[in-house]
Amino acid sequence: MRELGVIESPIALTNTLNVGLVADALVEYSIRQNPDIGITTSSVNVVVGETNDGWLNDLQGRHVRAGHVWAAIESASSEWVQEGNVGAGTGTVCFGWKGGIGTASRVIPADAGGWTVGALVQSNFGRARDLTICGVPVGRRVRPVRFDKPHRSGDEGSVMIVLTTNAPLDSRQLRRLCVRAAAGLARVGSHLSHGSGDFVIAFSTTNRVEHEAASLTTTQTVLAEEQKAMGWLFPGVVECVEEAVLNSLFCAETMAGRDGHTAYALPVDKVVELVRSHQLTDEVER
Amino acid sequence: MRELGVIESPIALTNTLNVGLVADALVEYSIRQNPDIGITTSSVNVVVGETNDGWLNDLQGRHVRAGHVWAAIESASSEWVQEGNVGAGTGTVCFGWKGGIGTASRVIPADAGGWTVGALVQSNFGRARDLTICGVPVGRRVRPVRFDKPHRSGDEGSVMIVLTTNAPLDSRQLRRLCVRAAAGLARVGSHLSHGSGDFVIAFSTTNRVEHEAASLTTTQTVLAEEQKAMGWLFPGVVECVEEAVLNSLFCAETMAGRDGHTAYALPVDKVVELVRSHQLTDEVER
Amino acid sequence: MRELGVIESPIALTNTLNVGLVADALVEYSIRQNPDIGITTSSVNVVVGETNDGWLNDLQGRHVRAGHVWAAIESASSEWVQEGNVGAGTGTVCFGWKGGIGTASRVIPADAGGWTVGALVQSNFGRARDLTICGVPVGRRVRPVRFDKPHRSGDEGSVMIVLTTNAPLDSRQLRRLCVRAAAGLARVGSHLSHGSGDFVIAFSTTNRVEHEAASLTTTQTVLAEEQKAMGWLFPGVVECVEEAVLNSLFCAETMAGRDGHTAYALPVDKVVELVRSHQLTDEVER
Amino acid sequence: MRELGVIESPIALTNTLNVGLVADALVEYSIRQNPDIGITTSSVNVVVGETNDGWLNDLQGRHVRAGHVWAAIESASSEWVQEGNVGAGTGTVCFGWKGGIGTASRVIPADAGGWTVGALVQSNFGRARDLTICGVPVGRRVRPVRFDKPHRSGDEGSVMIVLTTNAPLDSRQLRRLCVRAAAGLARVGSHLSHGSGDFVIAFSTTNRVEHEAASLTTTQTVLAEEQKAMGWLFPGVVECVEEAVLNSLFCAETMAGRDGHTAYALPVDKVVELVRSHQLTDEVER
Repeated sequence: MRELGVIESPIALTNTLNVGLVADALVEYSIRQNPDIGITTSSVNVVVGETNDGWLNDLQGRHVRAGHVWAAIESASSEWVQEGNVGAGTGTVCFGWKGGIGTASRVIPADAGGWTVGALVQSNFGRARDLTICGVPVGRRVRPVRFDKPHRSGDEGSVMIVLTTNAPLDSRQLRRLCVRAAAGLARVGSHLSHGSGDFVIAFSTTNRVEHEAASLTTTQTVLAEEQKAMGWLFPGVVECVEEAVLNSLFCAETMAGRDGHTAYALPVDKVVELVRSHQLTDEVER
Repeated sequence: MRELGVIESPIALTNTLNVGLVADALVEYSIRQNPDIGITTSSVNVVVGETNDGWLNDLQGRHVRAGHVWAAIESASSEWVQEGNVGAGTGTVCFGWKGGIGTASRVIPADAGGWTVGALVQSNFGRARDLTICGVPVGRRVRPVRFDKPHRSGDEGSVMIVLTTNAPLDSRQLRRLCVRAAAGLARVGSHLSHGSGDFVIAFSTTNRVEHEAASLTTTQTVLAEEQKAMGWLFPGVVECVEEAVLNSLFCAETMAGRDGHTAYALPVDKVVELVRSHQLTDEVER
Repeated sequence: MRELGVIESPIALTNTLNVGLVADALVEYSIRQNPDIGITTSSVNVVVGETNDGWLNDLQGRHVRAGHVWAAIESASSEWVQEGNVGAGTGTVCFGWKGGIGTASRVIPADAGGWTVGALVQSNFGRARDLTICGVPVGRRVRPVRFDKPHRSGDEGSVMIVLTTNAPLDSRQLRRLCVRAAAGLARVGSHLSHGSGDFVIAFSTTNRVEHEAASLTTTQTVLAEEQKAMGWLFPGVVECVEEAVLNSLFCAETMAGRDGHTAYALPVDKVVELVRSHQLTDEVER
Repeated sequence: MRELGVIESPIALTNTLNVGLVADALVEYSIRQNPDIGITTSSVNVVVGETNDGWLNDLQGRHVRAGHVWAAIESASSEWVQEGNVGAGTGTVCFGWKGGIGTASRVIPADAGGWTVGALVQSNFGRARDLTICGVPVGRRVRPVRFDKPHRSGDEGSVMIVLTTNAPLDSRQLRRLCVRAAAGLARVGSHLSHGSGDFVIAFSTTNRVEHEAASLTTTQTVLAEEQKAMGWLFPGVVECVEEAVLNSLFCAETMAGRDGHTAYALPVDKVVELVRSHQLTDEVER
């Protein structure tokens, strides 16, 4: 993608050991959509993200099969995104609590373009003691039973983040968005820990790339005042990633997994009360 | 440095338009130290970092001259580092307040190596409304007079960060530290804004590289349990960067600059009170 | 790998659309070798390289199955490497001729370390008119029937290169080797064309990384005179890659593939004569 | 530049130790052109390339002063570029011979866009025995007196390459061009040696970036069929870089430098004869 600047398949998320099977299912799906692939046209590069959900999940079983991938694609819609224990978020653990899928978006002001930027996260990272919500270090007070320490032996997990926008950004500008996602993670208490890696991928829905273009060049709308748009898109990315992680926690439900392992849902009422009682009201003093 | 993995000069920090003169002063200094440079041995690659302090400083004047650079090097010591309005931090502005130089360090536990990691920052970034201290969004309440908006037209500045450690890290591992610095910036309210760029450089004081090695290979102590050490060094970097930025703000003093511009010192008493009254005490509930 | 600096599985090569299945077979193999994966220890990151062999091969069939991968691993030996139409080289096309697997190595002088560097290529790139052997532009004279133009509609293919050495190199130094592989490709006539991407991976067999280290640090032999070793390893990489590509061509045999497509073996006698008659003898004039 | 995607100053080339002074001269020049810099608008990022010409040149003297930089900019024209011993090429050595500045360009076919791509090189690299011209290993036969070995103790120098095109490329696409320059260097015998680094910078003259845009977005012509254009631009870059290096050698003249060092001009007649007598004529056999 860095070389060619194009995403050619749906972005699928799964667990670490299922990447191969899910990639193959995307290939199969792509071939069905375009039977020319690899015969009269080029091959296809598919995109799969992952985190290691092996504490709850029987990872070695590689239970996600092609049919699940195809069903996920076919049931994709523009309705509300389900959050929490769904899809690749079913088995994830985040700050010691049950994590999952979360999403959030921001619309930037009309005079900065009025564009939308959104994030979807598969949250599977963080030490219980570090969870921070709206700046309040909730993890210092509220921790899951038996989760004082990272449940993974030293490995603090990772997160997969997908960013998208309808702002007409090019590869360089999209990469700039990706870098800013780290600040969103830091706001909830991440220190971008050792482990399998925190990945971010970003794409724009504007200026789509034709597989077979009608002409050598085309005319596109691009940013002219990059600073003005980025002045809003960057904080937008940070806020989206922060909120998406929180949504994944707030929407997840307690889940029992393999070998008697249970990841508990964040105790929402207690956390909300704690945050409310420590939050700053918003009046500026001079 | 990415190619050769070595730093050959002191790291000098200055303002954006003075980079050329400071680099030349470092070349001059290096030649004095080693008259063989460029004659019987290779040339020298010097390292200069910068931020744009043009709101307070007459940037075009390029007032830092070779003598200042040499004096800075010669007066370097292992005593306490001066913080606030010193050196390249003299003219910087951070979250609308007077910024400057700040530094902090952490010693990691003995069973994880007992190493030290430290950060030095030249803080020149951030919107007044975003300043966050210990998770408390101080910038929502306390803002400098006439600084509701970024004083630079849209440009929100940048920061230069130097990380150092005595852990025996290689280039890849040092680069990993650099990436984590972003989380420290996020904790104080940065969204890694548009502008001249936030740079991080890291070096290890262990396993020094000889300019002319006595033998083809040498024996070094290196990390074997990377995860264990990084499990402490990464949070260490995040905390150091956060604390170093705060130190730069807490140590800086009000400064009057060009054209009637004045950057005010952070009202420390008010901020401390605000943070104290909103901070969570540290008792864990189960 | 860039983040963690370690290769955890055999490196498998296959065709573009088989990457998923081959990755899954490597996961299965890894689990058999270490049943703790994902249960009491971390997950595993497997490595698969690919080129698009879709002109000869029924790419959509994804005919490489897990059993082939396991058989390949189990039959791996330290004997002579088979070259030409073997493994992932079975269906590749290179400069219009039948390509395949090729390999070559160099031993550098004892006073520069005496180390070996080797390359293995899966050659699937190049326009017929560009083939260059020992500097002689063979492709201007000798071209395959019906292969004046790239047989792929504009896509000129790619190459996968694996470099290995017993020199005690770290990640940065291995990456430096990878960059130099491009010069080897250029020597045979490549211009690093558009397409699915030319990838290079390098590893050192010295200073192996323990999955569970016995102690926090360890002692390693590392390069002290990087310039001296690289002064031989870099040209070594260039020569290995050049020779490996040529070996892949010289060892490959004519192969009939799908839909009546046939890739012809390089006419070795004619090419050797052409090269001999145009090569410079090696006497230096002053 | 990677972050912001824009070049804000003329690109100046000089020697390694003069980078600081030349950068400062570019700052001074930029301020004269735009007195708002650093006062009411942002600062300026200047671009300087370098190679180490210390074998001929008294590098420590740093003899290039601001006046030389300004004169170079002011005398820049769209006339024929001077090649050989000019500017930053005055003191360079290439494959043991006198190197210098060289340039070349290609126009791609009208149906692939008809664009021009050009290279300018400051050639200061290569071992005498490796010089290759049109595939003929000239360096095996013709070598400079007293230059059998690299004259720099192990350091084989470097090259600075500037690429430009009027094709409407974005940052990602320009970076792709840069990567292909390596193949041009390989064609003349480079193995991208250890040393101060081979740098390539590329820019497009189309779709210029306004410092203060009139509107938030603008309309641009961009590539739609990237593969078709790159299918010509990539070989174009390779050929330009190869030819530019050769031009730098063919145009350079013998130069006496410091401490009795003399770099001799390539013996053009002898080399041309050697190449002619070993070159393949261009008739294709089938």
